[in-house]
Amino acid sequence: MPKTTLKKLAAILGLSTATVSKALKNYPDINENTKKRVVDLATSLNYQPNSLAQGLRNQESKLIGLIIPEIVHHFFSNIISGCIKAAEKRGYLVIVLQTNESFEQEKNHLKLLMNKNVDGILLSLSDDTTQHKHIKQVIDKGIPIVLYDKISKLIKSSKVIIDDQKAAFNATQYLIDSGCKKIAHIRGDLKPQTTIDRFIGYKKALAKNNIPFDNALVYRCKNLTYGEGFRLAKKIIQDHEDVDGVFAFTDLLATGVLKRFNELKVPVPEQVSVMGFSDWFLTKITTPTLSSVHQPGFEMGQQAFELLYKDICTLKKGEEIIPQIIEIPTYIVPRNSTRKLTKQTK
Amino acid sequence: MPKTTLKKLAAILGLSTATVSKALKNYPDINENTKKRVVDLATSLNYQPNSLAQGLRNQESKLIGLIIPEIVHHFFSNIISGCIKAAEKRGYLVIVLQTNESFEQEKNHLKLLMNKNVDGILLSLSDDTTQHKHIKQVIDKGIPIVLYDKISKLIKSSKVIIDDQKAAFNATQYLIDSGCKKIAHIRGDLKPQTTIDRFIGYKKALAKNNIPFDNALVYRCKNLTYGEGFRLAKKIIQDHEDVDGVFAFTDLLATGVLKRFNELKVPVPEQVSVMGFSDWFLTKITTPTLSSVHQPGFEMGQQAFELLYKDICTLKKGEEIIPQIIEIPTYIVPRNSTRKLTKQTK
Repeated sequence: MPKTTLKKLAAILGLSTATVSKALKNYPDINENTKKRVVDLATSLNYQPNSLAQGLRNQESKLIGLIIPEIVHHFFSNIISGCIKAAEKRGYLVIVLQTNESFEQEKNHLKLLMNKNVDGILLSLSDDTTQHKHIKQVIDKGIPIVLYDKISKLIKSSKVIIDDQKAAFNATQYLIDSGCKKIAHIRGDLKPQTTIDRFIGYKKALAKNNIPFDNALVYRCKNLTYGEGFRLAKKIIQDHEDVDGVFAFTDLLATGVLKRFNELKVPVPEQVSVMGFSDWFLTKITTPTLSSVHQPGFEMGQQAFELLYKDICTLKKGEEIIPQIIEIPTYIVPRNSTRKLTKQTK
Repeated sequence: MPKTTLKKLAAILGLSTATVSKALKNYPDINENTKKRVVDLATSLNYQPNSLAQGLRNQESKLIGLIIPEIVHHFFSNIISGCIKAAEKRGYLVIVLQTNESFEQEKNHLKLLMNKNVDGILLSLSDDTTQHKHIKQVIDKGIPIVLYDKISKLIKSSKVIIDDQKAAFNATQYLIDSGCKKIAHIRGDLKPQTTIDRFIGYKKALAKNNIPFDNALVYRCKNLTYGEGFRLAKKIIQDHEDVDGVFAFTDLLATGVLKRFNELKVPVPEQVSVMGFSDWFLTKITTPTLSSVHQPGFEMGQQAFELLYKDICTLKKGEEIIPQIIEIPTYIVPRNSTRKLTKQTK
């Protein structure tokens, strides 16, 4: 909607801007009928300062949407926190929506946010999302989207990611460097890119160290829960009594593994080393404490907002967005569930 | 702002509504000049469907604000999740803001939300908040506020609470019923109502069971962290070698206590029982698992939104809000950090 100015009011009413201005200020030299016409139109156009109307006039709502797969989740709540902190500094407010990994929810949420005239959207793709028309539609309407964490290479937008392959490679290499020779991997479901990439990283590390890949050592679970880790730990040790390492897709799974190994009197790390992924708070609480890959959620939330802000500003200047990809580094946090390194990690 | 109708467009332009309607539909029997005037005004008035403009017309933004002390926090992230879920069902979006327990932040956030024309606000008071003028101002402007969790009896608004005194009484009673005779209490800082109430609940349970209150058994900490629990556990056992129960203000503190007792080879629960508060996920992960008081965050978030929605509807009907207080029940979740009950909990 075009900006409402004195000039616009004047043009619609066929009056001079001076007359309109005076009418609004209730000058005595303007006749009552004219005053009434001016005030009526100004009211209709909401010429009075008003945040919603200002939003309309500036084409800015100073609102952004943050679509998150799961709120009650250490990594994602860190992302929310980082995003809100960065947004606050720039005077933006953040609408938070949860997809629960549902494609339908993702579509609905994007629609809602468009209707709310948000200035931009941060989106982590749901595990169910396989086509991207709904995302392209939003971008085509001039609302920038920045993808974070769960992304698709097929979407032309800015992105904030971690290199899951590299992170998983490093985690597996760490287990090998600490003496593990037979490492099981608990992976997520087939589809999400993160589980694919971490699986590839695991395989690459084995290959690099001339350890033959054995598909029987890969355990897949749909739900990345503590309970699944607990269940699979027993299966792993039953299937492969000489297994000496477990690399789990998330800390939650790894925590379930640790608990079950405790119960089964499988010494960790003396017999089996366990490595998680994410470096949640709970890694410090388990017995033994859990070695993990640090995945910087707060920083990811901050950087995702900053990237979105940059794209919003670019659009505002009438320029074209050149999508940018930021990779946030990860690192291993060794704790007591893995043995000390026997040689330096490469 | 008055609703933009065909009638209004017609009145401003001095045309009939039929002419305006036809002009908008580009009927051939309307002259081009008239069409241009109508379309220009309709565009200026944003007569096209548009959510911001609809918001203006209905005086509704369908946005609410949720002010939360801390996002990366199991209990509060459950509240966010419950609130967003309930809001979604009613077609509301939720702006999330974090205070970090700062009074200044709380004031700023309320201002921002007012400027954003939210329909209502959910607020948990920051620990620093001692006066309530800023809250009264918002309520006086016709924006309903519902307080949740950390509330003040001095604010006239709807509230969703748990009865911290009762919950702490029950937790202490549970320890007594399981055979504890000398129970330490790790409490929070002096000011927040929740720490005061849980402390009172602890004292009342001792009194009811004719156990003399000993202030030396009460340990205060400003930061409710794992590290503080870890630190205080050693101090408790050094100060009182015959202590046989610890009731901690939060699970995080209790988890630190458990870890330290593990390291000090203090058998839990054989020598000392440990009871937490909140029933976070981490209670299932500790060794031994942690008995706790279940504090239903998700439900609190849902109910807080529902109460706010009710208040918003009341205001919309032009009626006065009659503040309502909902108390959400808590219950003990016994796990392995406390002994089995020797008699029934009252």
